[in-house]
Amino acid sequence: MNAQARLVDDEVRKGLEGLGGWRLAAGAIAREFRFASFVEAFGFLARVALVAESLRHHPELTSSYDRVTVRLTTHDAGGVTRLDLDLAARIDQLGDR
Amino acid sequence: MNAQARLVDDEVRKGLEGLGGWRLAAGAIAREFRFASFVEAFGFLARVALVAESLRHHPELTSSYDRVTVRLTTHDAGGVTRLDLDLAARIDQLGDR
Amino acid sequence: MNAQARLVDDEVRKGLEGLGGWRLAAGAIAREFRFASFVEAFGFLARVALVAESLRHHPELTSSYDRVTVRLTTHDAGGVTRLDLDLAARIDQLGDR
Amino acid sequence: MNAQARLVDDEVRKGLEGLGGWRLAAGAIAREFRFASFVEAFGFLARVALVAESLRHHPELTSSYDRVTVRLTTHDAGGVTRLDLDLAARIDQLGDR
Repeated sequence: MNAQARLVDDEVRKGLEGLGGWRLAAGAIAREFRFASFVEAFGFLARVALVAESLRHHPELTSSYDRVTVRLTTHDAGGVTRLDLDLAARIDQLGDR
Repeated sequence: MNAQARLVDDEVRKGLEGLGGWRLAAGAIAREFRFASFVEAFGFLARVALVAESLRHHPELTSSYDRVTVRLTTHDAGGVTRLDLDLAARIDQLGDR
Repeated sequence: MNAQARLVDDEVRKGLEGLGGWRLAAGAIAREFRFASFVEAFGFLARVALVAESLRHHPELTSSYDRVTVRLTTHDAGGVTRLDLDLAARIDQLGDR
Repeated sequence: MNAQARLVDDEVRKGLEGLGGWRLAAGAIAREFRFASFVEAFGFLARVALVAESLRHHPELTSSYDRVTVRLTTHDAGGVTRLDLDLAARIDQLGDR
């Protein structure tokens, strides 16, 4: 299966079942993470950046004090792909959240 | 002068005159920065995070591949303050943009 | 008490009693931290950097794959000060180690 | 040519000719970078970390206020390889130094 083929919404929702806190909206999956402080939030953001660069797949990241929102979509496919679900799972496994 | 007193829009616009690329919108000042790559964009984001933490004043940061948008407002004042203008100036002085 | 006055070795050792894993050597205190991966190690390094910049007191940091060594001394005092012990305590409180 | 085959010292020195400031010592190549501030030094360190993780090849990094030392070797080869020279070149191309 092509990791970069666009999934239909039912496939995305099925893929999200194993992940906590992600939602499907407007052709992307997104999750908000909260932390004890800006320092902890940035430590998370930095780890997400390293994972994203190593996969050559980059989320939209929004940081607002103790919150980080990660939004994933595959532009070339025009929607959510297996690659987005894989990156979401990798992000969920990052330490200390 | 209290660095955390809300400025009226004319004061903000006057303060932005010395800064390039910042705009006033919806009670905040914002600027978008573009970079050669995600790696360079993240290097900028990391430096902004250090400056923000050292001033105990945290912007809303949005990162999308080679672009970083910085949005500054002072929540306690309900709008833009001298502190936001000062942080904007500090961010503009960061290297390599 | 001046946070930047050099402590004698017995004072440093007493100060380290409440901290786990720090050792005194050659006019500095140091601790090695290990992580599950380079990504986790860098997330820690980033958080240490933010705390250090906000205190205007910067450790010597060595990163080698999954290990980060933090070494603290106060150059102006020529040895270990209360400021170093305080920063060590702040670093120990960072998440997920 | 295998990018991970150990190079003899003459090959390393020849490879370093095109790079400024790197030196060969004790089975590794190293370079020290200086910056205007700790903030700029950390911005560089963060970019090196992203490049390293994306290549799955991690330098030894030492940060001391405004200086960052990057040391590269390939443990599995017991010395310097083409991979180290390639990463050195990538690091030299990072912005704003």
